[in-house]
Amino acid sequence: MIAPSLDFWLEFGSTYSYPAAMRIAELAQAAGVTVRWRPFALGAIFKAQGWPPDSPFNWQQAKGRYMWRDLERLCAGYGLPFRRPDPFPQPSILAARVALVGLREGWGEDFARAVYRAEFAEGRQIGEPAVIGELVAGLGVPPEPVLARANGAENKDALRAATDEAQRLGIFGAPSFVTADGELFWGNDRLEAALAWAQRMG
Amino acid sequence: MIAPSLDFWLEFGSTYSYPAAMRIAELAQAAGVTVRWRPFALGAIFKAQGWPPDSPFNWQQAKGRYMWRDLERLCAGYGLPFRRPDPFPQPSILAARVALVGLREGWGEDFARAVYRAEFAEGRQIGEPAVIGELVAGLGVPPEPVLARANGAENKDALRAATDEAQRLGIFGAPSFVTADGELFWGNDRLEAALAWAQRMG
Repeated sequence: MIAPSLDFWLEFGSTYSYPAAMRIAELAQAAGVTVRWRPFALGAIFKAQGWPPDSPFNWQQAKGRYMWRDLERLCAGYGLPFRRPDPFPQPSILAARVALVGLREGWGEDFARAVYRAEFAEGRQIGEPAVIGELVAGLGVPPEPVLARANGAENKDALRAATDEAQRLGIFGAPSFVTADGELFWGNDRLEAALAWAQRMG
Repeated sequence: MIAPSLDFWLEFGSTYSYPAAMRIAELAQAAGVTVRWRPFALGAIFKAQGWPPDSPFNWQQAKGRYMWRDLERLCAGYGLPFRRPDPFPQPSILAARVALVGLREGWGEDFARAVYRAEFAEGRQIGEPAVIGELVAGLGVPPEPVLARANGAENKDALRAATDEAQRLGIFGAPSFVTADGELFWGNDRLEAALAWAQRMG
């Protein structure tokens, strides 16, 4: 018997990753499932598909209008504060690189939640190094060495490798969840189903 | 106090419209919500967006692979038989036209369920007039006059008008649900939320 586990693939620019990131810890604990947070760069996967260099919610206008309303309704239902980021999407690569550092050092999940809160509840510019530095400092971690490591060649390669892995797993959107036996679940809507599947695998 | 109602926008080629169509009557009855079935032609909306003349699940390959697995899991969970249509998508315009006739005559919902069952559980070719005629006959309705009315100019215009209305409502996919106060919900995943919203409106 292995302990049930689930990989949580997150993208910091992704709207539906916000409620998933804020909900997953409590739900996973209740289900007895260990979650591994896996930041990746969804834009690179869109680019590999030949898509425009922008969020599909911007160039697919009807779907985009719907998404904002749907997200607002969802957040209200979850009791999560919500404020639409401006501009959207926010540049997310720096946050993903810092999250990779933080996940190696034990503060990555708290950092990821802080980024989503800053971005989708507080209207902050998460692409700015000063904002990311403040969020790191807020966790009691000195920001300068973290930002230097985050932007180092080794860590940049780690984010590229994670993104390549996501693509090999068939991931095409965020949030996504992958169980130990390779079942892929896409979307905040599938978080509960993914945890239930992981639980049955344990 | 108006009786709560919900418009159910369905497309016969749409995969996730299958579980929605098979589930909605029972759920709506339990919620005390009257459902109006609204067939439309989603392909025309995709075309107006400049998209390829094919299902996005075919030209967005990773998403398509995921959708088939997701649908299979969902149907298993709902206890619905499932068989992948071949070819996919099935031509759906004739079914939509016949459904419009049937909805005017009181047998449209049963016909719609029969089409989805034939298409997604029995592997039948729902683009063939002979198959559609059999499904109509199975409801105790003589098929020849129905097929003639379905393909008449007035009924073709009615399907075009429904599709234009869907587009004006902001619909970009199927199934979709619209409440009396204009809230749009997209996807089989949102059926319960749409019914709950309609109920609060009543």
